[in-house]
Amino acid sequence: MPEEITVNELNSKDFIKKKVTEIGDAVGDGMAINALSGGVDSSTVTMLGHRALGNRLRTVFIENGLMRERESEQVSGFFRDLGVAVEVVDARNEFFEALKGITDPEEKREAIAQTFYREVFGRIVKESGAKYLLQGTILTDIDETLAGIKRQHNVFEQLGIDPQKVFGYQIIEPLVQLRKDGVRVIGKGMGLPPELFERIPFPGPALSARVIGAVTPERIALVRKATVIVERLLEETGAFQYMAILHEDRVTGIRDGQRDFGQQIEVRCWDSVDARVATPTRIPFEKLEELSREIISEVPGIVSVTYNIATKPPSTIEAV
Amino acid sequence: MPEEITVNELNSKDFIKKKVTEIGDAVGDGMAINALSGGVDSSTVTMLGHRALGNRLRTVFIENGLMRERESEQVSGFFRDLGVAVEVVDARNEFFEALKGITDPEEKREAIAQTFYREVFGRIVKESGAKYLLQGTILTDIDETLAGIKRQHNVFEQLGIDPQKVFGYQIIEPLVQLRKDGVRVIGKGMGLPPELFERIPFPGPALSARVIGAVTPERIALVRKATVIVERLLEETGAFQYMAILHEDRVTGIRDGQRDFGQQIEVRCWDSVDARVATPTRIPFEKLEELSREIISEVPGIVSVTYNIATKPPSTIEAV
Repeated sequence: MPEEITVNELNSKDFIKKKVTEIGDAVGDGMAINALSGGVDSSTVTMLGHRALGNRLRTVFIENGLMRERESEQVSGFFRDLGVAVEVVDARNEFFEALKGITDPEEKREAIAQTFYREVFGRIVKESGAKYLLQGTILTDIDETLAGIKRQHNVFEQLGIDPQKVFGYQIIEPLVQLRKDGVRVIGKGMGLPPELFERIPFPGPALSARVIGAVTPERIALVRKATVIVERLLEETGAFQYMAILHEDRVTGIRDGQRDFGQQIEVRCWDSVDARVATPTRIPFEKLEELSREIISEVPGIVSVTYNIATKPPSTIEAV
Repeated sequence: MPEEITVNELNSKDFIKKKVTEIGDAVGDGMAINALSGGVDSSTVTMLGHRALGNRLRTVFIENGLMRERESEQVSGFFRDLGVAVEVVDARNEFFEALKGITDPEEKREAIAQTFYREVFGRIVKESGAKYLLQGTILTDIDETLAGIKRQHNVFEQLGIDPQKVFGYQIIEPLVQLRKDGVRVIGKGMGLPPELFERIPFPGPALSARVIGAVTPERIALVRKATVIVERLLEETGAFQYMAILHEDRVTGIRDGQRDFGQQIEVRCWDSVDARVATPTRIPFEKLEELSREIISEVPGIVSVTYNIATKPPSTIEAV
């Protein structure tokens, strides 16, 4: 278990210097690779890696078709402005193919993880010749893996790489002593723009974690539209995380005076420090009603909107 | 279209006198029958009918297995105290049999209506020899039928009775000029106990309208448990209607530190005067969180609770 550095103990400058040195020492004159999701963790790791290695770090952004509106353009744009080249890999078809016919949440995560690690990123890593992987694992991931809440994080196994057979592969996890709040401090210290390091957390399985039941390009498009509205209206809350979830259950609605079955969007907005525990943000009802009105008028087929009032635990932050 | 009597125009004493006379004149020395659900409409009609006809009105309460906790005992108890005998008919097996394998909301309503009218109540009416049916139809029902929101209310057709063939059947609808608020005034005027006439509206398909997807005795038991909590905690809001809805969608939760898939209960609480339009009640977050905590700790398999923030329209008050 890595030793925790709390946000109060954290000296941003010293931490960055130490990690940059460690990465440089580990990789030597070799090459490293990392996958950037645009989240705070992987963005911060990208900056640490680039400061240590420059062009000897290859950073890929895998477009899985499950991202938020304009996400790949936006994220690669942020890094372009910082002088960091990000390679966008279009793997949309592979992901939707892998998700076809799957409704079970566990199988869904599995299909996305398999496609990400074994198929797409695994292929890229092997073809790149890089033997060093930078990974944005944080302490909460370790906790949740040990507790059985998150999947096992043995990255080599997930990449289909047997470190025994293929000597020399090494994983580097510079953020593993921090929690989310600490990572934000480091991200700021590395010069990430406020729009990026202040971004609310976004899960690995992306919008597919916010679609209950079948994941299709059409259903992802619906939850993406709702996500734009939720993120725009709830940004001012300053909450830890907020999201729209598309349900599969059908509920009755009225459209043009006629009975019409439609679907629900569930909104979640969490107050939390480190994602371990979370409570629903006490959003004023005026705002909740505005959210509901906009979602119903702008997202086709949605007749009803709910707000989650549970706490974590027993809920989780994401729905799937 | 019947002429509306608004609650402001309504003279309770005169209305009751007029309706009692009309029912007496219509039935003459014959026999009438009615189905009591325990809702305000059918309870008020039962009182009007009994005042007009005494023992020549036969009132049946059909136990369909979809009622709230202790509902049939409670309702028949209220009327026993008022000197009105209510016959409780146990038809639970017939209803669950009819609902087997049905998940579509429209088919569900259809199966319940068919079982209620054609099977159970139809059989009782025919066997009773009564030629007069008292029915608690109100003006909002007529509106919604005409608008295509509610099913067609041709009761004879639903009972499998062809009035052309079986000469003499007659339907009596004493409340058809009133809306819900007017019916409450009349109920009070007829001496119904506050606990009964102040009861929040409860739908025809009962708790099956509050189970999304398959209706089984087990799932009804879950939503019944949640309903007890919601009704107990939200009574003090004085809202027009409040309810618990069991979802079929599975969401992720954490139980004893382990990932656990479970289901959601959706809570709806409506501010409304007459059920035509409705807005979510602005319940304080302390209360919403208390609701969530109690439901999650007392209802097996529930890991998450939501509160509906849509308005009617485009939502409907009930979920199915």
